[in-house]
Amino acid sequence: MGGDFAPDAVIAGILLAQKELLPHQSLVLFGPQSLIESKLAEKGVPASAFEIIDCPDTIEMAASPVKSIMEKTESSLVKGFDYLKEDKIQGFASAGNTGAMLVGSVLKLGVVRENLRPCLISHVPQVNGGTAILSDVGANADCKPENLVDFAILSSCYAEFVLEIKNPRVGLINIGEEPEKGNALTITTNQLLSKIESLNFIGNIESRHTFTNHSDVLICSGFVGNVMIKLAEGLYEIFLRSGIKSPFLDSMNYESHGGSPILGVPKPVVVAHGISNDNAIKNMIGLTTRMVETQLCTKIKEAIQYA
Amino acid sequence: MGGDFAPDAVIAGILLAQKELLPHQSLVLFGPQSLIESKLAEKGVPASAFEIIDCPDTIEMAASPVKSIMEKTESSLVKGFDYLKEDKIQGFASAGNTGAMLVGSVLKLGVVRENLRPCLISHVPQVNGGTAILSDVGANADCKPENLVDFAILSSCYAEFVLEIKNPRVGLINIGEEPEKGNALTITTNQLLSKIESLNFIGNIESRHTFTNHSDVLICSGFVGNVMIKLAEGLYEIFLRSGIKSPFLDSMNYESHGGSPILGVPKPVVVAHGISNDNAIKNMIGLTTRMVETQLCTKIKEAIQYA
Repeated sequence: MGGDFAPDAVIAGILLAQKELLPHQSLVLFGPQSLIESKLAEKGVPASAFEIIDCPDTIEMAASPVKSIMEKTESSLVKGFDYLKEDKIQGFASAGNTGAMLVGSVLKLGVVRENLRPCLISHVPQVNGGTAILSDVGANADCKPENLVDFAILSSCYAEFVLEIKNPRVGLINIGEEPEKGNALTITTNQLLSKIESLNFIGNIESRHTFTNHSDVLICSGFVGNVMIKLAEGLYEIFLRSGIKSPFLDSMNYESHGGSPILGVPKPVVVAHGISNDNAIKNMIGLTTRMVETQLCTKIKEAIQYA
Repeated sequence: MGGDFAPDAVIAGILLAQKELLPHQSLVLFGPQSLIESKLAEKGVPASAFEIIDCPDTIEMAASPVKSIMEKTESSLVKGFDYLKEDKIQGFASAGNTGAMLVGSVLKLGVVRENLRPCLISHVPQVNGGTAILSDVGANADCKPENLVDFAILSSCYAEFVLEIKNPRVGLINIGEEPEKGNALTITTNQLLSKIESLNFIGNIESRHTFTNHSDVLICSGFVGNVMIKLAEGLYEIFLRSGIKSPFLDSMNYESHGGSPILGVPKPVVVAHGISNDNAIKNMIGLTTRMVETQLCTKIKEAIQYA
C-alpha cells in the first residue's frame, strides 16, 4: 500500500519484477490480502503466484513514524520488518512513508554497530554515464563528524559491492576544496576521513562537481543531502516540462534506480519515492534483490568492525 | 585587477557600463595606473575619462583574506574600501577574492548593528521570469538562528527596494514544509522568524521550489546556500555544454545580475564571479549603482533597528 499510486502501480511493478527473477528468488507481498488478490485477478494472475501476507492496517504518508510503528502492528510496514527480522524474507522494500521506514528499520532490526546512525543514500547520475552515491539524503538532519565517517564506510561498501566500483573514491561535500575550508562539521570530518586507511578518501568536493565523475561516493549531512537532491529534482522538473531532450536529463529520472537504500541496519531495506510508478517499483525490487545477492550487509558488518 | 580575466574584461565592462550612467554618476577606477591607462589607450579612450586611483598591490585569488587586508594596503581592494569609508565613492564593486571582499567590508566599514553578521546574497532566476534572493551563499559557513533572522531582514529590504518587490515573501530553506521539521538550526529559526512582524514570513520552503516562484527571499546558512548555488551552476554547465536551448537556462547565466551584494555593512558592496566577462562587469556596476540610488543601506539600517 506504499506510495501515491498504490496499490495499482505496486502490483504492476511486482508483475514486471517477477519476470526478471532467477529461479531461486521469489516475492512475498505484504498488504490487504483480498485487495491484492482482486488486483492480481484484474491482471489475470492467480493469487497462488505469490506468497501473500495479509496486512489490514495502513500507515498514512503524513503519519508520525514512531507512533505508526508502535500502533499499526498489522500494517505491511511493521509486518514486513517482522518477517525480515525473523529471516522469513531476505530483503524488504516499500514506497511508503520514508520516516516510518527509517524508524521501523532501526527499531525492528537494530544497527550494525553501537552508536551508528543509519543513512539513506541516493543514486546520482554522472555525465559519463556512471553512478555515484550521495549519503546521507535525509535520515539525519543534524550530524556529528563521526556520523559522516560511518556514512562514508557504509556507502563505500555499497559502491564497491552493489555498483561494482573498485576502490571507490570518497569525497566530502564542502564549500571549498582545501582541507581547512568549510563549516565546523566538514573541517573535522575531513581530518577524520583522512585517517581511515580502508577508505579511498580524495578530499573535499564542491557541489558543482556532483554530476561530473569527480567522486564515486559523496558524503554530507542529511540536511545538506536532502537539499541537494530536491534542488536537482526541481531543476529536472523544470527542464522536463520545457520539453528539453537530453540523455543526462533522462538519467536524472528517479525511476531508473527505483529507490534509496537504508544502510547501517543488518538487513537490506529500500525506500522508493512516494510518486513511484510501475517501472520504479520494478527497479526498487531489482535493487533490493542485488543487495541480497551481493551479501552487502555482511560486507558492511565486516567493514564497520575493522574501520 | 579582480577576476580571472582582469584587467581586459574589467576595462571592457567599465566602458560598457559608462554608456549607461546618468549625468550625476561617474566611475572611479582602482588599479595600477599605468596599466589602466595603457588598456584604455588600446580602446582609444583617454585616461582623463575616469578618475583613476593608483593601486600597485594585487591580492591573489587564493590569498588569505585577513592577511591581504592587513598587508596589501596599496591594493585596489583596500584602497577601494578606504575611499568608500571616507565617502569619496558611494559604492564599491570587484570581481576579486570573495573572502577578502567579505573580510575587507567588515574590517573597513563595520556592520549596521552590533553582533550582526553580514551575508552574501545571490539572485536566483524564477520560472515565471522573476528573481528571488538566496541568502546566505557563503559568508557564514556556520550560523545561529539569530544570524538567519538578520539575513531575512537584510534580504527582504534588498528585495523590496532594489528588486522593487512589494511585501516580499520570505521562506526558510528546509527539508520539510511543516514548522517542526528540519535540523536544530531551521526548527528554531522558523519559530523566531514567525515572530518578526515586519517580515512577510511564509514558512519553510523545500529546495525543489527554489526556482518556482514560491518565495521572493530564501534564507539558509552560508554552507547550504553555497552548496545550492554551486549545484545549480554545475547542472547549468552540463546542460549548456550539451547544446540545450531554453529561456530558463539562459536566465541561470551568472552574467545577468553581475554579482553578489554583501548586505549588513553600511555601504553598497558587490562581489562579482571570478570568471566575470565584460557583460558581467557591466551588470555588476549597474547593480552597485542601483544599490546606491535606492539608498538601500539607509533603509537597511532603519529596518534592522526596528525589527
